[in-house]
Amino acid sequence: MTDRQIASRTGEALDRLRASRPLVHHITNFVVMNDTANVTLLIGASPVMAHAPEEVEEMVSMAGALVLNPGTPQRDWNEAMLLAGRRARETGIPIVLDPVGAGATEFRTRTNRMLLDEVKPTIVRGNAGEIGALAGAGGEVKGVDSVGTLTDPEQVVRRAAKQWGVVVAITGRRDLVSDGERTIAVGNGHEWLTTLTGTGCMSTAMVAAFAAVEPDALYAATAGLAAYGVAAELAAARTDGPGSFKTALFDELYRLSSERLAEAASVVPVD
Amino acid sequence: MTDRQIASRTGEALDRLRASRPLVHHITNFVVMNDTANVTLLIGASPVMAHAPEEVEEMVSMAGALVLNPGTPQRDWNEAMLLAGRRARETGIPIVLDPVGAGATEFRTRTNRMLLDEVKPTIVRGNAGEIGALAGAGGEVKGVDSVGTLTDPEQVVRRAAKQWGVVVAITGRRDLVSDGERTIAVGNGHEWLTTLTGTGCMSTAMVAAFAAVEPDALYAATAGLAAYGVAAELAAARTDGPGSFKTALFDELYRLSSERLAEAASVVPVD
Amino acid sequence: MTDRQIASRTGEALDRLRASRPLVHHITNFVVMNDTANVTLLIGASPVMAHAPEEVEEMVSMAGALVLNPGTPQRDWNEAMLLAGRRARETGIPIVLDPVGAGATEFRTRTNRMLLDEVKPTIVRGNAGEIGALAGAGGEVKGVDSVGTLTDPEQVVRRAAKQWGVVVAITGRRDLVSDGERTIAVGNGHEWLTTLTGTGCMSTAMVAAFAAVEPDALYAATAGLAAYGVAAELAAARTDGPGSFKTALFDELYRLSSERLAEAASVVPVD
Repeated sequence: MTDRQIASRTGEALDRLRASRPLVHHITNFVVMNDTANVTLLIGASPVMAHAPEEVEEMVSMAGALVLNPGTPQRDWNEAMLLAGRRARETGIPIVLDPVGAGATEFRTRTNRMLLDEVKPTIVRGNAGEIGALAGAGGEVKGVDSVGTLTDPEQVVRRAAKQWGVVVAITGRRDLVSDGERTIAVGNGHEWLTTLTGTGCMSTAMVAAFAAVEPDALYAATAGLAAYGVAAELAAARTDGPGSFKTALFDELYRLSSERLAEAASVVPVD
Repeated sequence: MTDRQIASRTGEALDRLRASRPLVHHITNFVVMNDTANVTLLIGASPVMAHAPEEVEEMVSMAGALVLNPGTPQRDWNEAMLLAGRRARETGIPIVLDPVGAGATEFRTRTNRMLLDEVKPTIVRGNAGEIGALAGAGGEVKGVDSVGTLTDPEQVVRRAAKQWGVVVAITGRRDLVSDGERTIAVGNGHEWLTTLTGTGCMSTAMVAAFAAVEPDALYAATAGLAAYGVAAELAAARTDGPGSFKTALFDELYRLSSERLAEAASVVPVD
Repeated sequence: MTDRQIASRTGEALDRLRASRPLVHHITNFVVMNDTANVTLLIGASPVMAHAPEEVEEMVSMAGALVLNPGTPQRDWNEAMLLAGRRARETGIPIVLDPVGAGATEFRTRTNRMLLDEVKPTIVRGNAGEIGALAGAGGEVKGVDSVGTLTDPEQVVRRAAKQWGVVVAITGRRDLVSDGERTIAVGNGHEWLTTLTGTGCMSTAMVAAFAAVEPDALYAATAGLAAYGVAAELAAARTDGPGSFKTALFDELYRLSSERLAEAASVVPVD
């Protein structure tokens, strides 16, 4: 597909999202629960946060997508992630893994490797450090931030996708999405996203919302990141600090039309 | 009482709330803790979030009201809810239960039924789906959202109140509050409340703050919902998106005067 | 040092903070995690929230400072606080304890006394009620709010610092920071900070960020509180309610220049 075709498909996915209002089940970290629930709602889906082993299988069965985000990991949440993940897998519900801080500590790397192996998510969305570290491609992570740069990010995203058999999205100044064969670069976004906590987790929530309505995971991830980036650009254009930017970002996610998205999406196939 | 008398009583309750600044003890979910603490503070009460079995009985003994909100339920929090709830019950401290997502999973329905039976709350505040599901009146819940409509919501709220021996509030486009005999409709609010997460939980926090100063639970619930709805109307009048609306809602809750509230409250007895 | 010298040192610390972007490890409460992570980021440091015993020692080893804030205490988090605290102590990483609600319940007082004894933090930041209660100096706490006033706060802060062998900061209308010998009063701030939840916890996050770059803990605490207070003053000057004030506070923390801070800091040695 050409970039215009991908952009147009992105706009159509937003229309389907708003029309069907899918449930998105999040098992996520304590820091971002409120923000990612809001982002899910604002773009047009219906969020639920649920982590009790007693209910996650039943909950995910009603969902259009599942988010696994062990950003404040604790061992006793793994059971819920595994139960929900396996049920989602069995029933064909797309799963988005956000490996927050993988590479920063052995525990985070191990937890995310385990989820990658046991759950086999549909999409993995992380920063360069997290994906690099998980893929053994030299990513460096300080706390939850990526430090340093990957020598060849396009190769890393493609190889990680092939190696894990999933769609991988590396987000940063330029986002890269790959299924191992096809790779798309998403140019939307704004640097103020780096001044706020949870903006990576929010992009994962966007990807999950689109995965509930776009069956091709490569385009779902692309659409979620493009919609998020376009809303960020619109928000930044009318604000002058990170606090007011966040407020405006929420406004713009809600207001974003599919026409505007299709027009502004910078989604370019990479050779 | 006539609608004007109820409105006037609502304004007086706000004056008492600000004058006495009661402590409101919340055992609530991870998604809304920050927002419901802020709403409690902004309307004039003093919030505390505490869920350790070791301290909840001591904490609630100092409080003017208790909120039980198992919105991100996990089994090991039940003990704290039961300990705090029973102590509140024994000492006459009003308890507001928010049965988030009851009806969505068996675990949520069971947890809330258990709290209803064991704690015997003073007020239950939920959406049509949650109250309908708990009362066996056909409510439908997707995640934490009510879907579909109750055939006769006035009958449902009245019967649930009678059946459980509590005041029940069903919130939505029009809120209904009933003690089984008397029923009041609250017409305040704004549709943007549906675009943000936790707005139902915030309305529960409002009800609890008023329950600490208004001994008639029917009027306490009415006053909390009216004050919240009036603040939402004022906020919506000067904003143009959900993000800026939320910021303005916090401003308006803080600024809301008892005169303004008494004047704008749409609180109408239902035959 | 004179007040001008302290103010100038405060500005220099902000420059170092922005240049080195230290990792600040928080083990904190559920209510404020998002806000304190944002404050840490906005002032120029890099936050990570991590509470699993499996990873806290590894995480804190990479950090420039550690925050221990048992504001929603639960027994099974104590192990993580002790592990991280001891490791930080051994390796010379400054520790800031925020004894939220100490004095309100026996459990909170005991938890914080235990952390004080076992971890020996570098700085303790609390309100008058919390510090007074911990020091046995008659502080009174309702929930997490200080009620009543200390008869002689300067004496309380000095004695607590001496007794515990740490730097103590009591925040309120006028902040007091002491190491037992030297005491500094910080006059910056705004009353709207009292209308929002978590503003005390955010001031602790500020103190921790500065402790990562300012080796003298007395000046680190002073700098963190002054920077926070100056940003609050700038934010209040252009807003008219607590909601918009919070948004502006985030903007101003990000924008705050070291020159502006050095100029506006009201940091006065107390005899």
